Amino acid sequence: MAKILIIAASDSSLPAMNEAAKILEEFGVEYEITVSSAHRSPDRTKQLVDQAKRDEIKVIICGAGLAAHLAGVVAADFPLPVIGVPLQDGPLQGIDSLLATMQMPSGVPVATVAINGAKNAGVLAVQSLATSEKNLENKLIDYKKKLAKNVEAKAAQMK
Amino acid sequence: MAKILIIAASDSSLPAMNEAAKILEEFGVEYEITVSSAHRSPDRTKQLVDQAKRDEIKVIICGAGLAAHLAGVVAADFPLPVIGVPLQDGPLQGIDSLLATMQMPSGVPVATVAINGAKNAGVLAVQSLATSEKNLENKLIDYKKKLAKNVEAKAAQMK
Amino acid sequence: MAKILIIAASDSSLPAMNEAAKILEEFGVEYEITVSSAHRSPDRTKQLVDQAKRDEIKVIICGAGLAAHLAGVVAADFPLPVIGVPLQDGPLQGIDSLLATMQMPSGVPVATVAINGAKNAGVLAVQSLATSEKNLENKLIDYKKKLAKNVEAKAAQMK
Amino acid sequence: MAKILIIAASDSSLPAMNEAAKILEEFGVEYEITVSSAHRSPDRTKQLVDQAKRDEIKVIICGAGLAAHLAGVVAADFPLPVIGVPLQDGPLQGIDSLLATMQMPSGVPVATVAINGAKNAGVLAVQSLATSEKNLENKLIDYKKKLAKNVEAKAAQMK
Amino acid sequence: MAKILIIAASDSSLPAMNEAAKILEEFGVEYEITVSSAHRSPDRTKQLVDQAKRDEIKVIICGAGLAAHLAGVVAADFPLPVIGVPLQDGPLQGIDSLLATMQMPSGVPVATVAINGAKNAGVLAVQSLATSEKNLENKLIDYKKKLAKNVEAKAAQMK
Amino acid sequence: MAKILIIAASDSSLPAMNEAAKILEEFGVEYEITVSSAHRSPDRTKQLVDQAKRDEIKVIICGAGLAAHLAGVVAADFPLPVIGVPLQDGPLQGIDSLLATMQMPSGVPVATVAINGAKNAGVLAVQSLATSEKNLENKLIDYKKKLAKNVEAKAAQMK
Amino acid sequence: MAKILIIAASDSSLPAMNEAAKILEEFGVEYEITVSSAHRSPDRTKQLVDQAKRDEIKVIICGAGLAAHLAGVVAADFPLPVIGVPLQDGPLQGIDSLLATMQMPSGVPVATVAINGAKNAGVLAVQSLATSEKNLENKLIDYKKKLAKNVEAKAAQMK
Amino acid sequence: MAKILIIAASDSSLPAMNEAAKILEEFGVEYEITVSSAHRSPDRTKQLVDQAKRDEIKVIICGAGLAAHLAGVVAADFPLPVIGVPLQDGPLQGIDSLLATMQMPSGVPVATVAINGAKNAGVLAVQSLATSEKNLENKLIDYKKKLAKNVEAKAAQMK
Repeated sequence: MAKILIIAASDSSLPAMNEAAKILEEFGVEYEITVSSAHRSPDRTKQLVDQAKRDEIKVIICGAGLAAHLAGVVAADFPLPVIGVPLQDGPLQGIDSLLATMQMPSGVPVATVAINGAKNAGVLAVQSLATSEKNLENKLIDYKKKLAKNVEAKAAQMK
Repeated sequence: MAKILIIAASDSSLPAMNEAAKILEEFGVEYEITVSSAHRSPDRTKQLVDQAKRDEIKVIICGAGLAAHLAGVVAADFPLPVIGVPLQDGPLQGIDSLLATMQMPSGVPVATVAINGAKNAGVLAVQSLATSEKNLENKLIDYKKKLAKNVEAKAAQMK
Repeated sequence: MAKILIIAASDSSLPAMNEAAKILEEFGVEYEITVSSAHRSPDRTKQLVDQAKRDEIKVIICGAGLAAHLAGVVAADFPLPVIGVPLQDGPLQGIDSLLATMQMPSGVPVATVAINGAKNAGVLAVQSLATSEKNLENKLIDYKKKLAKNVEAKAAQMK
Repeated sequence: MAKILIIAASDSSLPAMNEAAKILEEFGVEYEITVSSAHRSPDRTKQLVDQAKRDEIKVIICGAGLAAHLAGVVAADFPLPVIGVPLQDGPLQGIDSLLATMQMPSGVPVATVAINGAKNAGVLAVQSLATSEKNLENKLIDYKKKLAKNVEAKAAQMK
Repeated sequence: MAKILIIAASDSSLPAMNEAAKILEEFGVEYEITVSSAHRSPDRTKQLVDQAKRDEIKVIICGAGLAAHLAGVVAADFPLPVIGVPLQDGPLQGIDSLLATMQMPSGVPVATVAINGAKNAGVLAVQSLATSEKNLENKLIDYKKKLAKNVEAKAAQMK
Repeated sequence: MAKILIIAASDSSLPAMNEAAKILEEFGVEYEITVSSAHRSPDRTKQLVDQAKRDEIKVIICGAGLAAHLAGVVAADFPLPVIGVPLQDGPLQGIDSLLATMQMPSGVPVATVAINGAKNAGVLAVQSLATSEKNLENKLIDYKKKLAKNVEAKAAQMK
Repeated sequence: MAKILIIAASDSSLPAMNEAAKILEEFGVEYEITVSSAHRSPDRTKQLVDQAKRDEIKVIICGAGLAAHLAGVVAADFPLPVIGVPLQDGPLQGIDSLLATMQMPSGVPVATVAINGAKNAGVLAVQSLATSEKNLENKLIDYKKKLAKNVEAKAAQMK
Repeated sequence: MAKILIIAASDSSLPAMNEAAKILEEFGVEYEITVSSAHRSPDRTKQLVDQAKRDEIKVIICGAGLAAHLAGVVAADFPLPVIGVPLQDGPLQGIDSLLATMQMPSGVPVATVAINGAKNAGVLAVQSLATSEKNLENKLIDYKKKLAKNVEAKAAQMK
């Protein structure tokens, strides 16, 4: 049963948000991915959050560009972690989505990652689950080792 | 019966948003003003919009700071003009609320005025009504004349 | 008889501003579209506004890039809603036109939409008329439903 | 036994970071708070992370201003969630700390909250634990209700 | 007879713009100073430019804040140099007036000086006249010497 | 004999700066154009200014990108108008050259035009000379008429 | 024996950082170049600094993009000059790496050069060594002459 | 005999730049401090650099605000390290001086520290000398230890 829900604000954002899905697969964490907009389909967005509560989803990852309200709107309703991915969309290169995602008022946080940082949103979702799943924590420790090994391998190739 | 609804995202934003109310009074346009947050009271915000539709409110003015989602969330539900006032709140001086209010996706506009521009939000609401109320249009023409007269008076004082 | 006047600041901005025209056609709202610059043809711009008043134009939409003064100059003269579309033109990607369009002084609002947001300018113009035309309000309600349906259709395709 | 570790990059940042501590107390979550700098006390920072692993700390919250490296340096070593609070420190008002905290490379996320958003960092830490503690999830649901009630109370006072 | 016209966009900008007047007095250049807004008194602004042409004014200096259109609107009509002073007014500290003043389209330049740089606008106006008045050029050479002497005097005091 | 000196900070900036030269030719104003850098050839830059004084050059136009110091360095030495063209060079798209050119300290103005605005620098140089040359002023009045005619022609084509 | 160590934060940054290496070769200064990340390989980064101390490396040049922490982390441990090259990587074009590299707290400087300024990082490293090596100082004087000659040659070609 | 020259662009910048002087005293490095402007006293600035070469000054530290050209102008002439301190001066809070100091073209680096980072400029100057003075390197190692001890002492006080 899915533990993570990924919502892309539009279908054009799906390729970017699939990076989060790939990481969850890599860590063996079940997820669902769908499309909904805070502005064009507000009722659907509300229903997705209601369904997520019933399904005992643990973390919701939201990706949106421009005046990115999706993560904030979801965080207004959902009591567990909401991770926001500001997408680089339109002329301002993501500065708008970054600020619209991150500058949330007191009481309603959105855990914001880098612009286009869907992959890191996936890692952060795994980390949130790993606070109670030793097995995921161990995978994260291995993941960190692998990151370091890749750097070392590249350094070795240079010689 | 009120034609305009003003929503401030928090009570601390009320003094700023009262500038819109004052203009509406000056033009003799009935309004209601209240407080609701897109993030802290999402259900209330939804109910206010539903009530506004039943009350045949013509324009909603929303004022919010930081990751200002209020106008966008209201515009997602409300079919008539939504005017957004980005408020200068927090360290970024309103750059965040400006972008979060204005950079709306295709199909769901927010008519954005200047940072802290609640007074102009009031004028714009009157202008929207004046598209069908000759009496308000005439008042707007007089208002423009008064603006010009004030400048002339100040220039005259300098001599 | 036209109710909306669209002014592009230069002929190179016409393709971008045609997005507003298309929306007005979709809603069955009559409009005129032309070209005039606040800086290169100030007299023509003044005459267009004078003519718009005589023609009982209800809303003027202005699109300009760089130090975008067109909407502000039109709003100085025109008593009804002026909608400004900051265009992404030149090295600053529209940050300049955004601020030059939106940061209007007290008394003279420009209803600013997103950078390149001509389509939303069209929707906002329709919304302004719909404050007194039930028929347009109903079309806007349908338009919102269609936006939501499109999102749902895309979500359904993903399964 | 503490589940959350809060690190302020300097003692001058302690008042800001205490907002996170207060929220944890409000939710009955044990924490430790201390001071360490990524730049002035790198060994101490490394030792704090090592100790946090041994103590089975579940989430580390880091607050820093300027070229805020603390959260990133901690996230490089710590496998569970690291929450970054960009502090408004110095002439750039937190734009520097925001970007230095949030723009992390692939593989090493920092869950970034708003500038000066230590309170929300506390809420997000609770949310992370609540992915496996029903009791905390219920408290978060109550917390959301309280946020909404406060807004309603303020709206009621206005009448 | 005045050779320079200084226009402040509002009476609140007069103290800032008086710095230009003081420099003109220091160089013995006759000027007039008045108030007019591109947005609130567009007809007056147009008349001022028409009068300036009749009076054979050589340079117009305009100071405005926010969406500063004054210099651009004057430059649209006036064939000789228009100097724009972006004023630090409102939450964006003059970034808005800077871009609205400087980013003029091809064919209609505004000679822009620093934010709040009315003093330098005065110097630049003198320099423009000095292209044909040897006497002013000599005063400018002396002025440069005085600037250097002041620095040297301060350096000497340090010993 | 040349009245205007154009200095490009590098040969790669020559095509951009030739726009200034073309305008001067269009107005029949003699000019010289050369290359010199404030940073890579400081002595040559100094000598060019010394020679410009001897040649009774009336206006110097400087174009530079990045930390654009050329106009400021020339203005430090030259008593008559110095026009700065910030060039769009490197990752910051001219924001750096804009600020480095425009934010001059009191006493030493640089007349700054838009990013890449070499054409307008040419017009501004002509305007400076036209403060004493009626013949150039008349050409500028014609130039303005031509700008307006071009807009009208484009508007006419649309019908 | 190498006097300069160049660290690129990732292998994709090697081409950019090789510009520093080329300058060091041009000046006959021995160097090593390798890859290590502050975030993905923190232990390797620490070991590189430890080894650099043992090898009596005199200057370390670090190049990184995004939330560029590499130079700051190295400067935290290394007592001699650390030069940071902010790389233009990702949607923000290097504004993030610039601020993350430069805005270091009191006591731990990073000598920051321009975005993508690896060549200048090489020159600055040579300059640091030249404070005690007359032979390098002479080469730097020649290098400056060559820069000036190149400009003069280009100016001569224009005639 | 002085090894370091500190130049403040104006006497109002002296208090800020004295932070560099204090650090040099703390490390027992002889220095001179004076005032000169790239724009108001260009000849004096040139003479200071010429004198610095004769006096075998090893590093020049320059502090300036706004369109800060001082460090760049000095670096154009001086073959050894030039350290630039962007000062927070005027409405843009040092963003202008930061970019004007740091974005130097290829071949002429300025080692830029944080806005108002005169203290770090002092440390960096010491580090440059320490590339050949073991005694200064040892003091820098002690300085780093002291920075860490201060943090530890503050952490201890919290218990």
